[in-house]
Amino acid sequence: MDPIEKLSQLFKEFPGIGPRQARRFTYFLMTKNKGYTDELIRLIGSISKEVTTCSKCYRFFPITSRTDVKECSICRDTHRDATFLMIVSKDVDMDAIERSKAYQGLYFVLGGNVPILDKNPETKIRSRELSDRITQDITTGTLQEIVLSLNATTEGEHTADFVRALIKPLIEKSAQPIKITVLGRGLSTGTELEYSDSETIKSALSGRK
Amino acid sequence: MDPIEKLSQLFKEFPGIGPRQARRFTYFLMTKNKGYTDELIRLIGSISKEVTTCSKCYRFFPITSRTDVKECSICRDTHRDATFLMIVSKDVDMDAIERSKAYQGLYFVLGGNVPILDKNPETKIRSRELSDRITQDITTGTLQEIVLSLNATTEGEHTADFVRALIKPLIEKSAQPIKITVLGRGLSTGTELEYSDSETIKSALSGRK
Amino acid sequence: MDPIEKLSQLFKEFPGIGPRQARRFTYFLMTKNKGYTDELIRLIGSISKEVTTCSKCYRFFPITSRTDVKECSICRDTHRDATFLMIVSKDVDMDAIERSKAYQGLYFVLGGNVPILDKNPETKIRSRELSDRITQDITTGTLQEIVLSLNATTEGEHTADFVRALIKPLIEKSAQPIKITVLGRGLSTGTELEYSDSETIKSALSGRK
Amino acid sequence: MDPIEKLSQLFKEFPGIGPRQARRFTYFLMTKNKGYTDELIRLIGSISKEVTTCSKCYRFFPITSRTDVKECSICRDTHRDATFLMIVSKDVDMDAIERSKAYQGLYFVLGGNVPILDKNPETKIRSRELSDRITQDITTGTLQEIVLSLNATTEGEHTADFVRALIKPLIEKSAQPIKITVLGRGLSTGTELEYSDSETIKSALSGRK
Repeated sequence: MDPIEKLSQLFKEFPGIGPRQARRFTYFLMTKNKGYTDELIRLIGSISKEVTTCSKCYRFFPITSRTDVKECSICRDTHRDATFLMIVSKDVDMDAIERSKAYQGLYFVLGGNVPILDKNPETKIRSRELSDRITQDITTGTLQEIVLSLNATTEGEHTADFVRALIKPLIEKSAQPIKITVLGRGLSTGTELEYSDSETIKSALSGRK
Repeated sequence: MDPIEKLSQLFKEFPGIGPRQARRFTYFLMTKNKGYTDELIRLIGSISKEVTTCSKCYRFFPITSRTDVKECSICRDTHRDATFLMIVSKDVDMDAIERSKAYQGLYFVLGGNVPILDKNPETKIRSRELSDRITQDITTGTLQEIVLSLNATTEGEHTADFVRALIKPLIEKSAQPIKITVLGRGLSTGTELEYSDSETIKSALSGRK
Repeated sequence: MDPIEKLSQLFKEFPGIGPRQARRFTYFLMTKNKGYTDELIRLIGSISKEVTTCSKCYRFFPITSRTDVKECSICRDTHRDATFLMIVSKDVDMDAIERSKAYQGLYFVLGGNVPILDKNPETKIRSRELSDRITQDITTGTLQEIVLSLNATTEGEHTADFVRALIKPLIEKSAQPIKITVLGRGLSTGTELEYSDSETIKSALSGRK
Repeated sequence: MDPIEKLSQLFKEFPGIGPRQARRFTYFLMTKNKGYTDELIRLIGSISKEVTTCSKCYRFFPITSRTDVKECSICRDTHRDATFLMIVSKDVDMDAIERSKAYQGLYFVLGGNVPILDKNPETKIRSRELSDRITQDITTGTLQEIVLSLNATTEGEHTADFVRALIKPLIEKSAQPIKITVLGRGLSTGTELEYSDSETIKSALSGRK
């Protein structure tokens, strides 16, 4: 197999990329100057060395020069509000929350969603790591609210149900009460009432202000 | 112009219908039996006679045999909660709210939206009729909350701003306090966090429960 | 059921129209003046009386004042080239051909397509009427070419195969030779080579000029 | 800027990739094992060394061990029919033609299209290289037909016009006649007559068979 074909095969594994676009990526790289490809190679190579998973929230974060640092900048930021723990599916969801600048608490990244009718749901997300984190937070005694920030889709709701069942027994052992909340439903930007489902309208009504 | 062409021209005025689909409607009618077209003709003919605008909420409603009835079934329903008045743009929005079975109050249909930068915004919706309705409700003394149920779009928000400015001076004259609320923003069904704008996330966060 | 609901039900049967758009049609009609609805009613009513199926090509055509006329304007037009007979699926296909002004021959409208794996394919199109037409054209002795103008889709090709099998035995009885042709395949306007299937490229190559 | 952000910036330059998908690529790479990323790095690095532009047709091709080879496998293949020269825009177009297995001649890759109203059209494609190639082919005396295989889009047609004007004076000097042809227009696979433009129908009719 020639290198054009081989590289296209690798690009085909990129999320959302089919065989044609994979090939276009390869042709694209052949037209780029050495500066660009060298930088691309350097970054792909270093990303696994320069990026690691935070030992506390499990999101990806760049390794700093101090090699003993195991927690990401958010987990280490003492200005963040440790009374809140937000549980998200993926790093990209956390990015979206951070972009909104509306949340000042801490995070936990599940690493995925729990598919419906899955036989081993606990293996699809960081179940064990989440249990450990919650247990530890209870010991520390600062946690007051866990916010389930999952997609408003069937899979997201299924994941929320699974997580709630997982953490409920744990927080019942907590000395101080810990609330579990979910993101508010309602009209998202751009939504027209006419095309909204009853579920959304119900939430929008009860959440009016 | 032949009748096929003429009828297609009329169908072209239907909302969302282009010349090709208009023609397909015409061909479709030519394949239907007389029972169907007779019923269609009868209903189109009677809709303007059998349907009228409610004198109170301005939605369309079927005229009953008692010709003195000027109000629709919802406005006449004594079980509806007269402490609430919901303001919507169009009949279809009201249909969506009623489908949700989440609202038991009364309505007012604006008849449209207020376009941004419009020179005569007060002519685009039933401004005068709304003022009269609010004034009358204040006199009756039952009204406690006005819910602005408008689209979560730029135009919808502009309409909400216009309506609020219109009714605020009126409700300030009320003896008992009247709240103005808007539908809650948040994640609507099917929304993925990753693709949500900051506005929606902010609302979803503050509306968590 | 109220008239709004009843009329929406009828509109729901229109090709490509769902329940929401059907309802919007009804609300739309309620906002139109009497001139529009009266004209709409008149045309829907007369379309079955003023339009009939051509006894020769089976397309719909407006009945003229001379009630003895059974053939459409194209079939009666002595300037059309009777050596060509084009077979199309539907009236809309014929409209598209006429718009192109590239064809001067006569037509036959099948009234549909033959679905794949259909048990009674001969009942899905005007099989009998087509056989009669071809037989008659052979008797007249003018016909020289039959053009199968069907969609370049799997169903269209299946219909073409069915029609060819149906008319082949008939034209073999003809004294003078009659050709059966199909529309040329190739790049249609807007097509990019990169996304073209091999079938299309093969045809485009053999049809190069 | 952290490495996650930096790598995402590079991916954003990939054809058809926006900021969100670029970021998803980065996160994707962080979840892949070292085997995959090492191979990706190796291939990106070698693609510029292992791939070169054919000195005859200008397509990209893998460099073989014999470093003196300057022509691609197709240009060196003595079984290809040298009486045909096909002119395409890009490598991906050539891939599509090869996939169809319908063409056995040689190629020339322009490297792009000529945009409409462009001030320096000759700089947008390999004008000079094309002129040289044609001149050389005329000297050799084998060339009989030049096939313009460009997109059936406005830009593709404009490029065809430009190329024709460029090569016409050259082939007029040829001792033996050289034809210039273009790919046949017609119905491409999946096309429905009803939605076809007159241009396509005209071509499909004249190309019927």
